Amino acid sequence: MISETVEKYRTYLEKLRAYEHAMGLMSYDMNTIMPKGAGPVVGSTFGVLSEVMYDMVTAPETEEMQQEILAHRDEVDPAIVRTAELATEEHARIACIPKEEYVQYTIDQTTADQVWHEAKIKSDFEMFRPHLEKLVAAQKRFAKYYKPDAPVYDTMLDGYEKGLNTATLDRFFKAVRERLVPVIAKIKEQPDVGFLHTHYPTADQRVFSDYLMDVLGLDRNYCVIGETEHPFTTSFTKYDVRITTHYHEDAVEASMYSVIHEGGHATYERNIADEIAKLPIGGGVSMSVHECQSRFFENIIGRSEPFIEAIFPKMQEIFPEQLKNVTAHEFYVAVNKAEPSLIRTEADELTYSLHVMVRYELEKRLFNGDLEVKDLPAEWNRMYKEYLGIDVPDDRRGVLQDSHWAGGLFGYFPSYALGSAYGAQMIKRMEQDIDVWTNVREGNLKPIVEWLTDKIYRFGCMKEPVAMMEEVFGAPFDPTYYTDYLTKKYSELYHLN
Amino acid sequence: MISETVEKYRTYLEKLRAYEHAMGLMSYDMNTIMPKGAGPVVGSTFGVLSEVMYDMVTAPETEEMQQEILAHRDEVDPAIVRTAELATEEHARIACIPKEEYVQYTIDQTTADQVWHEAKIKSDFEMFRPHLEKLVAAQKRFAKYYKPDAPVYDTMLDGYEKGLNTATLDRFFKAVRERLVPVIAKIKEQPDVGFLHTHYPTADQRVFSDYLMDVLGLDRNYCVIGETEHPFTTSFTKYDVRITTHYHEDAVEASMYSVIHEGGHATYERNIADEIAKLPIGGGVSMSVHECQSRFFENIIGRSEPFIEAIFPKMQEIFPEQLKNVTAHEFYVAVNKAEPSLIRTEADELTYSLHVMVRYELEKRLFNGDLEVKDLPAEWNRMYKEYLGIDVPDDRRGVLQDSHWAGGLFGYFPSYALGSAYGAQMIKRMEQDIDVWTNVREGNLKPIVEWLTDKIYRFGCMKEPVAMMEEVFGAPFDPTYYTDYLTKKYSELYHLN
Repeated sequence: MISETVEKYRTYLEKLRAYEHAMGLMSYDMNTIMPKGAGPVVGSTFGVLSEVMYDMVTAPETEEMQQEILAHRDEVDPAIVRTAELATEEHARIACIPKEEYVQYTIDQTTADQVWHEAKIKSDFEMFRPHLEKLVAAQKRFAKYYKPDAPVYDTMLDGYEKGLNTATLDRFFKAVRERLVPVIAKIKEQPDVGFLHTHYPTADQRVFSDYLMDVLGLDRNYCVIGETEHPFTTSFTKYDVRITTHYHEDAVEASMYSVIHEGGHATYERNIADEIAKLPIGGGVSMSVHECQSRFFENIIGRSEPFIEAIFPKMQEIFPEQLKNVTAHEFYVAVNKAEPSLIRTEADELTYSLHVMVRYELEKRLFNGDLEVKDLPAEWNRMYKEYLGIDVPDDRRGVLQDSHWAGGLFGYFPSYALGSAYGAQMIKRMEQDIDVWTNVREGNLKPIVEWLTDKIYRFGCMKEPVAMMEEVFGAPFDPTYYTDYLTKKYSELYHLN
Repeated sequence: MISETVEKYRTYLEKLRAYEHAMGLMSYDMNTIMPKGAGPVVGSTFGVLSEVMYDMVTAPETEEMQQEILAHRDEVDPAIVRTAELATEEHARIACIPKEEYVQYTIDQTTADQVWHEAKIKSDFEMFRPHLEKLVAAQKRFAKYYKPDAPVYDTMLDGYEKGLNTATLDRFFKAVRERLVPVIAKIKEQPDVGFLHTHYPTADQRVFSDYLMDVLGLDRNYCVIGETEHPFTTSFTKYDVRITTHYHEDAVEASMYSVIHEGGHATYERNIADEIAKLPIGGGVSMSVHECQSRFFENIIGRSEPFIEAIFPKMQEIFPEQLKNVTAHEFYVAVNKAEPSLIRTEADELTYSLHVMVRYELEKRLFNGDLEVKDLPAEWNRMYKEYLGIDVPDDRRGVLQDSHWAGGLFGYFPSYALGSAYGAQMIKRMEQDIDVWTNVREGNLKPIVEWLTDKIYRFGCMKEPVAMMEEVFGAPFDPTYYTDYLTKKYSELYHLN
């Protein structure tokens, strides 16, 4: 009886969710409050639990249940069918990895992440290198197990966004480079941003974060904010979403835009339909679509003049001394200062994609070409000089700045640029349905969130990401929207022509 | 081959540790930062993981391994033998519970804990009552499954401290009542404690907490501090120990003594021998011995005049305005103000045991007698009037004040009083070996921690608690040390005769 199988499968999925919850919480804890010395113990725990999960996911009975559900797809809840479909794909990706390698990898990843934190503080790439080498070698092997004949990096990109490959990204980054580098070159005079960098006490910034979460409509009963070195968002179902930030007392915009960025991720997760919330498909559909949301709220909305106008009175209330002689317009101009810089997460919208491009090129050569891990720092520095025109003073602010590689996330970076580009096309469509900017100017993001919920959020992973975004756009993806948007915004801001 | 069994058993233990780690972290998270709305999800996760643990612990293969190890005890590492011994006892306690009941209980417990938090805020016992009734009924059944013929409450007491029973506790509380109530009655004039209740900002109290953790010698690399409603300590092996506190800006001594109390628990966990740290026996041996440590540091050391003299200069540095016109002696007198009050955790040393006695009497009647859950508030209030002479204005400050019952911890409370009494006898022995008070006056607790490590901490659960404490005392337990200590201390403080 198919209904019995579905019941059994639901029980299995609930068990899987519990393990993912436990491991997710552990990972969150590790990045927020765990004492550093606990590293080895948490590594062992990860090893044990990931082995159990591997056994569950790769068990023949699991495969059988999924096959049976797919064979009876017309009689089964579509959410369960979709879950079985995606699990079958995921199964193919994991089952080809020998179990010892899989378990060892999760342990190595935990270790690498911990060593990276320390290596970054010490700006010591050599300390991190052997750990990174292990992860790169393992991921190369895993990609080859899965698709022996495909270029390794394409297999990895496909894992984050189905159908994405180097051909598409080469074209995308070429367009970005050709359209945006000339705009950057035209910028000569810079606005005064000194008022962003006076003293903004952490305690007051915490109050500001709470306010921003309110503006985004994040219900604190289901969404909390924590503090960490490198901000991220995590979610153990939509009922427990956690964003993180990092306070710099001499840079108020750093945490401000972290909160809005992570808040964008959280808004996505929080608005998934209740019916699918506890299933594996009850999360964001792909990294690009996720980054589309976070970067949409961070930049297209959050760095727009109407948004700054909406929140500025409250900011002046929280930071009366610091913003006494500043206007909303001056603040808007300051948070959009465009200038090639060292740190991706602090980069302005205009130069941001070039940071991603460097990582993309390095990853492509690391996995498809002949670049070795040991040569990463030198190549990183060379490319920052070539594309952004700046000298990297140390690895802390260079190759060690991001947490992604330490977490084994290779092929993830392009999502940031692609997600940004999605956003520029998405808002054009949104503007046809609702009066975006009048609402933003009133500090009312609700209609925007509702529009996005209707078109994207509620579906979770029910749809394929590329097809869904084309449906949202009403057309195929076109990077011109992105390059046009940035060209127009920065030409106005800097009075270019 | 016994060596193969031991190897297999070690693997099993490591797996068990991982599950305990995951569930422990979830429980910690729930009590510190989890968004409240996540309750149902975390409850389901607990249900899934506790079922797996139940299966592991009660599996026939587990029992076989343990029996084989015990049969070859002379050939096996004593730490493994002891683990198998205690697991066999624990197994007997759990295996008699039908699995569905066991799993349901862990879910009910999670729910009860969450409802209690809300009910306490609302001072609404009726809201909490049905949940408490479920837990009481389940624990009654569990005790009867385990020892059908023993009085239920004795079975429960024995679970926290082997060999403890109502006969011993009745005698103990009788001595306490007879010796201490007259001392309390003699107290007429109270010292000025107004300076404790001016404004102590949370931010400054956090700095003070850090300082106290340094004084206790807690290495922040392995021990962190968090914030919660009802302070507790948890430990995922000695390499990850977490204490919690609660800041009241109008009562500096509240968090101060929470930190020292929880720090005492943490000191115990942190000093367990490395060789047994990752085994189930790598934790405190019993609740009484644990509370002995926390209340020893909190009261016997922390509320002593030499200790206040040692830390007072630093306190004046952190709270210069608040303590400008206060002397160390005045502070010492103030934090030892003895007066019957409502809240156990804020009670002074002298009246503290009476708070415990009320809970003990209520639990005894709830499990052995005819007291029903619905009658708890009225009985609570009646006994507070009878023994402490005070009126309980609402359940928030009455029967709902403690988290223990919400967590299913019945039979735990006596540990606090017993632990306090252990401490008074313990220090007499310690004073024969080291110059306790000269060291305390210098703010140097190291020799004390070393002495305790040598006699108690390092052994974890290797020894039986009652026998170990008798070894420490060099004599059987005698509550006279405790009543003498309190009588002397308070007679001096209040100039009684």
